[in-house]
Amino acid sequence: MALLVVGSVAFDSIRTPHGKVENLLGGSATYFSVAASWFTSVNVVAVAGDDFGDEQLRVFHGRGIDTAGLERAQGKTFRWSGEYVGDMNEARTLETQLNVFEQFSPKIPALYQESEFVFLGNIDPVLQLHVRRQLPKARLVALDSMNYWIKGKPEDLKRTLAEVDVLVINETEARMLSGIFNLRKAAQAIRGMGPRAVVVKRGEHGVTLFSESSIFSAPAFPLEEVHDPTGAGDTFAGGFMGHLARAGSLSDADFRRAVIYGSVMASFAVEEFGLARLVRLTPDEIETRYREFRNLTHFDA
Amino acid sequence: MALLVVGSVAFDSIRTPHGKVENLLGGSATYFSVAASWFTSVNVVAVAGDDFGDEQLRVFHGRGIDTAGLERAQGKTFRWSGEYVGDMNEARTLETQLNVFEQFSPKIPALYQESEFVFLGNIDPVLQLHVRRQLPKARLVALDSMNYWIKGKPEDLKRTLAEVDVLVINETEARMLSGIFNLRKAAQAIRGMGPRAVVVKRGEHGVTLFSESSIFSAPAFPLEEVHDPTGAGDTFAGGFMGHLARAGSLSDADFRRAVIYGSVMASFAVEEFGLARLVRLTPDEIETRYREFRNLTHFDA
Repeated sequence: MALLVVGSVAFDSIRTPHGKVENLLGGSATYFSVAASWFTSVNVVAVAGDDFGDEQLRVFHGRGIDTAGLERAQGKTFRWSGEYVGDMNEARTLETQLNVFEQFSPKIPALYQESEFVFLGNIDPVLQLHVRRQLPKARLVALDSMNYWIKGKPEDLKRTLAEVDVLVINETEARMLSGIFNLRKAAQAIRGMGPRAVVVKRGEHGVTLFSESSIFSAPAFPLEEVHDPTGAGDTFAGGFMGHLARAGSLSDADFRRAVIYGSVMASFAVEEFGLARLVRLTPDEIETRYREFRNLTHFDA
Repeated sequence: MALLVVGSVAFDSIRTPHGKVENLLGGSATYFSVAASWFTSVNVVAVAGDDFGDEQLRVFHGRGIDTAGLERAQGKTFRWSGEYVGDMNEARTLETQLNVFEQFSPKIPALYQESEFVFLGNIDPVLQLHVRRQLPKARLVALDSMNYWIKGKPEDLKRTLAEVDVLVINETEARMLSGIFNLRKAAQAIRGMGPRAVVVKRGEHGVTLFSESSIFSAPAFPLEEVHDPTGAGDTFAGGFMGHLARAGSLSDADFRRAVIYGSVMASFAVEEFGLARLVRLTPDEIETRYREFRNLTHFDA
């Protein structure tokens, strides 16, 4: 089943203890769609500037991603630069240039309006709601957000949350959004705002899924080296939604598998800078790491 | 199979966001033995002062714990006071009075010298080694330590580590001991010092077991409220070693089950102050929570 993502395309400049890169292709829609492309066909709605060329398009098309919804605007593409220090669990933003992203008004091509599986990447919640309402056939809409919107547009974010099925959010932001420190209670409060499931990303500590029927906790893959955490959250979401769209299922068992596939993809993403590892994967590598996750967590009755 | 623990008996005064208590029975040997008593028979070697009376002894005897190795010395019992704030992941020590514990020289009753399963609680590594060498029949010796000894007696600690099988240690201390930030590499370095398995306690993020054959990660149980984290680490160790001694097994499958039983016991311990919840358990409650841990982590292939 095709999967629709609305989000950002960006050029990232990143410094980590393992090195430094300039103007790498990034952005939430990019990481998401490349990760999800290993599971299902993906349609992207985003905006890029006139500095976005064939080299970048080839990354999408090389993964069979449909870019009919990738608008080209006059001006420069969104640029972000940041660095990671210490435990690399959080990025320190050095500079953000919104550029063409500032005026982004997502247009959903007619072809995409039948989408059943949708990911609303981290953009203005007003735009997220606007998109959501153009997708009456959606069976599963997941949404990402961040502290910037939680603080800046709390009422708009809540209106949007009331109309989505899954919130994918990091631990700190789950606490900020709910005003509750205990994660179990925080997730319950957030589920009260609309989403029937909350996926809490905990960085090196893994992911916890809170749904109506159960709580599911997955560890992060114990890597020996993390080279670049950029995009790990959107990559997680790509594997998570990619699996669900491929399975065409909303069962608890598939939500759990989806959390693991998301974790698998994120574990690959951080092994190298930018998209390097994600574009070079094989289905075998993905399945092998999925089995390694089983071995990492399995115990007998 | 009987399990031997050598450690401390203490009176704790504790403040957490949920309340305040004075002079509660505590100490590493106490939490460990009460937790382990739900799995197997337990022998304690520790020292208490003349302020330790029948009321305290009844806690041990009520759980069928053998106190032939619980020495009574003139003076006051070890006292600790501390508080937990914020995420309660680390205690802030307000006061430590070593009292009779300062001169503690563990004596292993003849009856205990055949012990096959042994836990060396967090005491001076010189004493830990002294005890370890009195136990030639030991099949599994696990050891706990802390920053105080890692910094203060690193060479003694390393000599002791060379003669034990399992190190149970928290995340920060694993990094401190190895001098390596990445936990997978840190555990590998520590295994190079002697222990064939390293159990890393990560507080609210769970536990990771690093052994020769595999890595196993278990989440913490997602409690709605943590009332008092005191003794959670020793309680974990009690459930962990209790299961292994009961099973009489050193298989990978039993090490994994042991991590879960340890986590089960720790999750109960923190629900109330001191030992209150641990002494009031039932085998049914323990098995129910073990199954809940399976539900929390299980996913299908």
